[in-house]
Amino acid sequence: MTDAATLTATMQQLGRDAVAAQRVLAAASGEQRNRALQAMAAALRAHQPEILAANQRDMSAAAGLGRAGLDRLQLDAARVEAMARGVEEIAALADPIGTVTAEWTRPNGLRFQRVRVPLGVIGIIFESRPNVTCDAGALCLKSANAAILRGGSESHNSSVAIHDCLVAGLRAAGLPDACIQLVPTTDRAAVGHMLAGMTEFIDVIVPRGGKSLIARVKQEARVPVIGHLEGICHVYVDRAANLEMARSIVLNAKLRRTGVCGAAETLLVDAAAQRTHLAPLVRELLDAGCEVRGDAATCAVDTRVKTATEADWHTEYLDAIIAVKLVAGVDGAIAHIARYGSDHTESIVTDDAAAAERFLSRVDSAIVLHNASTQFADGGEFGMGAEIGISTDRFHARGPVGVEQLTSYKYVVRGSGQVRP
Amino acid sequence: MTDAATLTATMQQLGRDAVAAQRVLAAASGEQRNRALQAMAAALRAHQPEILAANQRDMSAAAGLGRAGLDRLQLDAARVEAMARGVEEIAALADPIGTVTAEWTRPNGLRFQRVRVPLGVIGIIFESRPNVTCDAGALCLKSANAAILRGGSESHNSSVAIHDCLVAGLRAAGLPDACIQLVPTTDRAAVGHMLAGMTEFIDVIVPRGGKSLIARVKQEARVPVIGHLEGICHVYVDRAANLEMARSIVLNAKLRRTGVCGAAETLLVDAAAQRTHLAPLVRELLDAGCEVRGDAATCAVDTRVKTATEADWHTEYLDAIIAVKLVAGVDGAIAHIARYGSDHTESIVTDDAAAAERFLSRVDSAIVLHNASTQFADGGEFGMGAEIGISTDRFHARGPVGVEQLTSYKYVVRGSGQVRP
Repeated sequence: MTDAATLTATMQQLGRDAVAAQRVLAAASGEQRNRALQAMAAALRAHQPEILAANQRDMSAAAGLGRAGLDRLQLDAARVEAMARGVEEIAALADPIGTVTAEWTRPNGLRFQRVRVPLGVIGIIFESRPNVTCDAGALCLKSANAAILRGGSESHNSSVAIHDCLVAGLRAAGLPDACIQLVPTTDRAAVGHMLAGMTEFIDVIVPRGGKSLIARVKQEARVPVIGHLEGICHVYVDRAANLEMARSIVLNAKLRRTGVCGAAETLLVDAAAQRTHLAPLVRELLDAGCEVRGDAATCAVDTRVKTATEADWHTEYLDAIIAVKLVAGVDGAIAHIARYGSDHTESIVTDDAAAAERFLSRVDSAIVLHNASTQFADGGEFGMGAEIGISTDRFHARGPVGVEQLTSYKYVVRGSGQVRP
Repeated sequence: MTDAATLTATMQQLGRDAVAAQRVLAAASGEQRNRALQAMAAALRAHQPEILAANQRDMSAAAGLGRAGLDRLQLDAARVEAMARGVEEIAALADPIGTVTAEWTRPNGLRFQRVRVPLGVIGIIFESRPNVTCDAGALCLKSANAAILRGGSESHNSSVAIHDCLVAGLRAAGLPDACIQLVPTTDRAAVGHMLAGMTEFIDVIVPRGGKSLIARVKQEARVPVIGHLEGICHVYVDRAANLEMARSIVLNAKLRRTGVCGAAETLLVDAAAQRTHLAPLVRELLDAGCEVRGDAATCAVDTRVKTATEADWHTEYLDAIIAVKLVAGVDGAIAHIARYGSDHTESIVTDDAAAAERFLSRVDSAIVLHNASTQFADGGEFGMGAEIGISTDRFHARGPVGVEQLTSYKYVVRGSGQVRP
């Protein structure tokens, strides 16, 4: 245990160092930042044995974590290689900093440019996945932001070993160590400091983890937060849906991976398609090993269907369970999603172009899809490269958050002596 | 006085009504929103006598407000006409909603669009200027956001009369009254509700007023805030500045209007220009009636100069007072601004292109200018049309906040049955 005064001093120093390092970073070239990223990838490969040994210590100490938790924590050679390749892919992305996103001249001759600049210092609070150290650190560096990383105590040894490689990369490119800092203590009070005690230093907080972490961050943070609480994603199968396409999209949206935020949690079927589409879709899900909780019409399809309660429409299962309901056409689907959705990702399956456009324009989620799986909710699938997460907020970034979304902008105005009348 | 339970019920109802109205607004066409704006302008002109009579009641009750306060509160025929014209100008702006700001296709055939959507419900908290009712209401409507307006108690009668005209415009275009609501009570506790008790309904808060209001809002708000605390704007006169241009820009930046956030508060002069530029600039300011508070070199120029204290470099005077200091070239200016600035607006005067570019890239403010007055820090001067304010935050909107900055976006993805491998 650290005593409170020491912790405060440590965290304040981390903050000051991050701000100073970020100034250097903002003035560094994109080429220099990329050189650091390349050197990080090389260091991760070179130090694979140390990383795996550190991870082994974490795994031994975390035996009580449960199977899913241990899987999130565990590293192996393939996972270390995937981290290194991820960093190289981030290096290969276009440099977002300095990009001119708008440009115009006023009648008085003033020339305006809107130019991308870094957000500043980003605090990342995560749980057991040690690779977040690497992904988040690399994304922040690419976008010329300083990062302060705070990982879960169960992955601390792994995070330290990975962080050592990131620092080696920074040094190889002549950048300050403090561009990417790892909070050196596992004291839980450090999180409170990042959320509310370092507003002078931290510009944005990105939480990565389960719902209770995100809820705490959203509740306590005194700086802006990029993130999402949950992904209650819907697939709506319209009367004009091609049944084969609907089947393929529903199964993929629910079952490809059940633990990701873009996994479908509720299937809405057009009442006009009850006789044609409902039974085949429900049986296919059941046969694939998915638990189905349905309304009365759905229960009538198969004895294996359980009765859904009001809570089911609100639930992000993150598991092989789906809630199924008949709705009155596209407007019924839009109304259900407005009431129960989490503004994350929703898909309509239909061959009716007018119904599709109505759904796409009226459903007010970060991502709306037509004839495609909700599991495409991912920065990589969007072509953004890696993402630091998905935002369901309406402010600043919405949807996948890649390097562009980790920037702000400023206005550069060039004149020839203009004064305002 | 309203009792607490009644106030809570009133505010919750305002929130629910705003959300419902915003859904209607999001589905309305830009043409329909413009029709409402045109009808509002007509209503403001038609009801000028009622507005002025209401304003007279506010003026009589507010005799103790002081000259500046009374000037902010007072309306006359010209000010009502300016409000009506302002609303027409907002109607004439391009519709931001539905604009596609990026579009691409992935190798798997998925077609992506990023589309502008409204932020949702915007809460505006302002002080004595009754015209904010009109400007803010019109900007929110143009951007398809619902507005909940809370004005100062001293301008309540004026705001009610203006708000009646806005509602008349909404009705004429067939839009719900609740698109623009005015908090019906002057109970100060209503502000607390908007800041922290209506997170379910209000998406963003915009404070318009003095530093103490903004500070309270930033402290208490549980939803994102668009605004700026203060504008400590700098003009830096470089060794390579044309003296005549420097003189014209410095006088304009400080004295054109001293009470606006883009007014210069500190003049930095290159030490290498001490003998050529410092004395003429300081004397010109003094002769124009500006108080000058300077460092030792500046005090040596003229006996009328007062000695600046550390506090002066931190102060937004909003008055005919300027702090003046010699700095060691462009890097000295950059360092001073990094230490004392408020990230609002700074200008460099120089004929040296390299010095200008160094200043423009290294000064990390929302607006940086070369050879132009800081008083151009204004959405109208940027060509954005009206603005709801200027942001010095790095998150979401930075600089002037016009209708485009009052939007969020969503991703619309069109496929042909794609599932994720």
